[in-house]
Amino acid sequence: MIGLGVMGRNLLLNMADHGFAVIGFDLDAQKGSTLESSATPGTKVKGVTTLADMVSQLKSPRKIMMLVPAGKPVDDVIESLLPLVQQGDIIIDGGNSHYTDTLRRVNYLHPKGFHFMGMGVSGGEQGARRGPSIMPGGDADAYQHVKPLLEAIAAKVNGEPCTAYMGKDAAGHYVKMVHNGIEYAIMQLISEVYDLLKRGLGLSNQELHDTFKQWNEGELQSFLVEITRDIFLQKDDITGNDLIDMILDKAGSKGTGKWTSQDAMELPIAIPTIDMSVALRTVSAYKEERVQAAALYKPSVKPLKGNKEAIIKQLHDALYFSTIICYAQGLSMLYKASDELKMDIPLKDVVKSWRGGCIIRSSLLETFYAAYNKKGKKLPNILLDRSIASLLKKKEKNIRTAVKLASQSKLACACLMSSLAYFDAYTTERMPTNLIQAQRDYFGAHTYERIDKEGKFHTEWQSHE
Amino acid sequence: MIGLGVMGRNLLLNMADHGFAVIGFDLDAQKGSTLESSATPGTKVKGVTTLADMVSQLKSPRKIMMLVPAGKPVDDVIESLLPLVQQGDIIIDGGNSHYTDTLRRVNYLHPKGFHFMGMGVSGGEQGARRGPSIMPGGDADAYQHVKPLLEAIAAKVNGEPCTAYMGKDAAGHYVKMVHNGIEYAIMQLISEVYDLLKRGLGLSNQELHDTFKQWNEGELQSFLVEITRDIFLQKDDITGNDLIDMILDKAGSKGTGKWTSQDAMELPIAIPTIDMSVALRTVSAYKEERVQAAALYKPSVKPLKGNKEAIIKQLHDALYFSTIICYAQGLSMLYKASDELKMDIPLKDVVKSWRGGCIIRSSLLETFYAAYNKKGKKLPNILLDRSIASLLKKKEKNIRTAVKLASQSKLACACLMSSLAYFDAYTTERMPTNLIQAQRDYFGAHTYERIDKEGKFHTEWQSHE
Repeated sequence: MIGLGVMGRNLLLNMADHGFAVIGFDLDAQKGSTLESSATPGTKVKGVTTLADMVSQLKSPRKIMMLVPAGKPVDDVIESLLPLVQQGDIIIDGGNSHYTDTLRRVNYLHPKGFHFMGMGVSGGEQGARRGPSIMPGGDADAYQHVKPLLEAIAAKVNGEPCTAYMGKDAAGHYVKMVHNGIEYAIMQLISEVYDLLKRGLGLSNQELHDTFKQWNEGELQSFLVEITRDIFLQKDDITGNDLIDMILDKAGSKGTGKWTSQDAMELPIAIPTIDMSVALRTVSAYKEERVQAAALYKPSVKPLKGNKEAIIKQLHDALYFSTIICYAQGLSMLYKASDELKMDIPLKDVVKSWRGGCIIRSSLLETFYAAYNKKGKKLPNILLDRSIASLLKKKEKNIRTAVKLASQSKLACACLMSSLAYFDAYTTERMPTNLIQAQRDYFGAHTYERIDKEGKFHTEWQSHE
Repeated sequence: MIGLGVMGRNLLLNMADHGFAVIGFDLDAQKGSTLESSATPGTKVKGVTTLADMVSQLKSPRKIMMLVPAGKPVDDVIESLLPLVQQGDIIIDGGNSHYTDTLRRVNYLHPKGFHFMGMGVSGGEQGARRGPSIMPGGDADAYQHVKPLLEAIAAKVNGEPCTAYMGKDAAGHYVKMVHNGIEYAIMQLISEVYDLLKRGLGLSNQELHDTFKQWNEGELQSFLVEITRDIFLQKDDITGNDLIDMILDKAGSKGTGKWTSQDAMELPIAIPTIDMSVALRTVSAYKEERVQAAALYKPSVKPLKGNKEAIIKQLHDALYFSTIICYAQGLSMLYKASDELKMDIPLKDVVKSWRGGCIIRSSLLETFYAAYNKKGKKLPNILLDRSIASLLKKKEKNIRTAVKLASQSKLACACLMSSLAYFDAYTTERMPTNLIQAQRDYFGAHTYERIDKEGKFHTEWQSHE
């Protein structure tokens, strides 16, 4: 392992606990010591401060993983390794690299006789230590060498490891990128529902905790709902207040959500709820402008009208509905990318691997797994699955009500709204896009297709004042 | 002029009508003949079939414009020109090139002693012939050489030409890209309102014509509303039906909308209504999937409830409100890009140039022009202008009603909804993003900021089951 930050260290300790002898390298000797001292007694864990030392102690084919920041550091590590490794050795990038970089590295190292694998790891620090979801991609033969190790350390659901081969070339990083895009969108959705519950319905943090606790025990069960439940009871060490109320409303990001949206537009595939979550993080960062705008517009939140318990149920259903939409968008993107970028991504294995360990794990993944088990590779969008359609139909009325309430509240519910709009657009045979085509042909002679004939048509449009 | 497609030809004829002697080059001799035969008698217009012939007849510094497809054709033209041109000559790309390509070409040609200018031209075929909006960027001294020509051929509003220097490097193409992003969003908004009027309220094409005609005579006056008015009365030559009903609901695109969204995410700046319009064009292309989904979900449109005239007024206001939001997003992107990409884009001149000739010309541009005249460079977002705030506040109630109606109708109103959500997010001092920061710190130790202290903080979050 190259890079002994907390993620690298925890993954190594996890491997060691499963009986693998591991070596970690970091220039910072302190990190190597921390690694060794944190190891479970009896496990084989070593920290070293030179790459050569590490490489010389590994058996062929060597399995060398790095967990370093994306970008130049990965290329630097590769160049440092090149003089030390042998043909057939496997170099694994376990960080959040952009898939185009991974593809470039695969193509750079392949002719030299080395295997380069891009691998997504999700689950945060605790996941790395106790069982993450692992998304490896690249050369299928090289994968066989690391498969036993990855299956051992991954999270388990129903005895099955939350890892599988994700496809060719940069598929591992591609799947992880889309995972993160879905994560962005679900987090934004939860925050919108939080806003409706708190500022729209006046729930206290204790009530918010109770609500999310109850939701986590039902069909909304998921890691993100679970930690949201916890967050509302966390006290602030500094003021003694509830910590959530002391946190500034400016979100950071590492870029993977942005990449997901940018790459979706490139394919193209529509993932508007994910796009919207990226945009809203950006708006959150305009704190100064928002303060100015608030002084100018003086928005005052309108309490949601209706029975409190009924509204909570509506918001529950709205969150459930829109969470499915996020997965649908992300998975439809993988479906298309698999084909367009020739990665052969097995969607069934993707959702299987997401059932545990990762940030977007939720009980819904079992439903999606069943859908892919049934339809195999013939499901471009999970919305086309009959069981999923039936789940959505049950919640449809309530997300409509939630959006209606939100529209009157002055609370921005961008992702809830975009989920509903995506659903309505996706499920209609007839969009009003005929008008856009007419406009484009009118001003730019871009031509249009017809409903009754094949071909491209152009009209000399007339003015009718 | 290199490339005598209809846009190139029309621009040349326009120049000739203003007393400039022009030469057009196209390998296709027929195009040169068409050019010459379409010229106004007495004007100096020549068509040639070799580049050398064209270049040799121009006076120094030569002003050579190309209108060829974006991408490799532009590079090919540049390479063909290099042996023929002299130091100080000006090469202008009037097509829809991506600004990064333009920047690369500027940097490639500058050391060789040539000026390369990226120039956006909007207005379609008719605009090119009678007066387009022209967005030139690049070297400020080179601009002085083409300024008289561009000012002569551009559309005029209140006697002022709809063209101005848009800034350094690739600023011309950048401004045009954002123009097109705004265009995508407004077209999508109009199509959503069309859907609500037609499928939600049952308006006939004649009534749709009457509605848009009336709207175009009021505060919604704009080129896109005007052509929408016309479109509803156009008859189909083939069937005799109204043509709009014979057009397939699959939109095409040339990519500039997509670039706008991708580049906005790169900056980053939030332009969610534009993003959404890009996504919806993509959904429109999934015609087969939508037909399948419609069979599964059997959505039946719910007529909009309420007084018909009142709803039409609400939709009018919703369109007005959300159109302002589109411009606000696009202009805020230019504000940020101007700075980040060191282009020094004069926003006042941008909106001045958009007042006439271009596809997004509308009476609103005068309002924006006034805002920039007042605040100069200190307006990161037009929503922060007091007069614009007052316009929005008057329409706010009605866009909320429109979104409420849309939420119940099963008609996808993604851009109307995203405009309202953007407005609500932008004008609130307190977004629920504190929860997202708590979640990110919980699972990934990404740290958060506080409302009461500077700095980055991390908490060891506890489980509370």
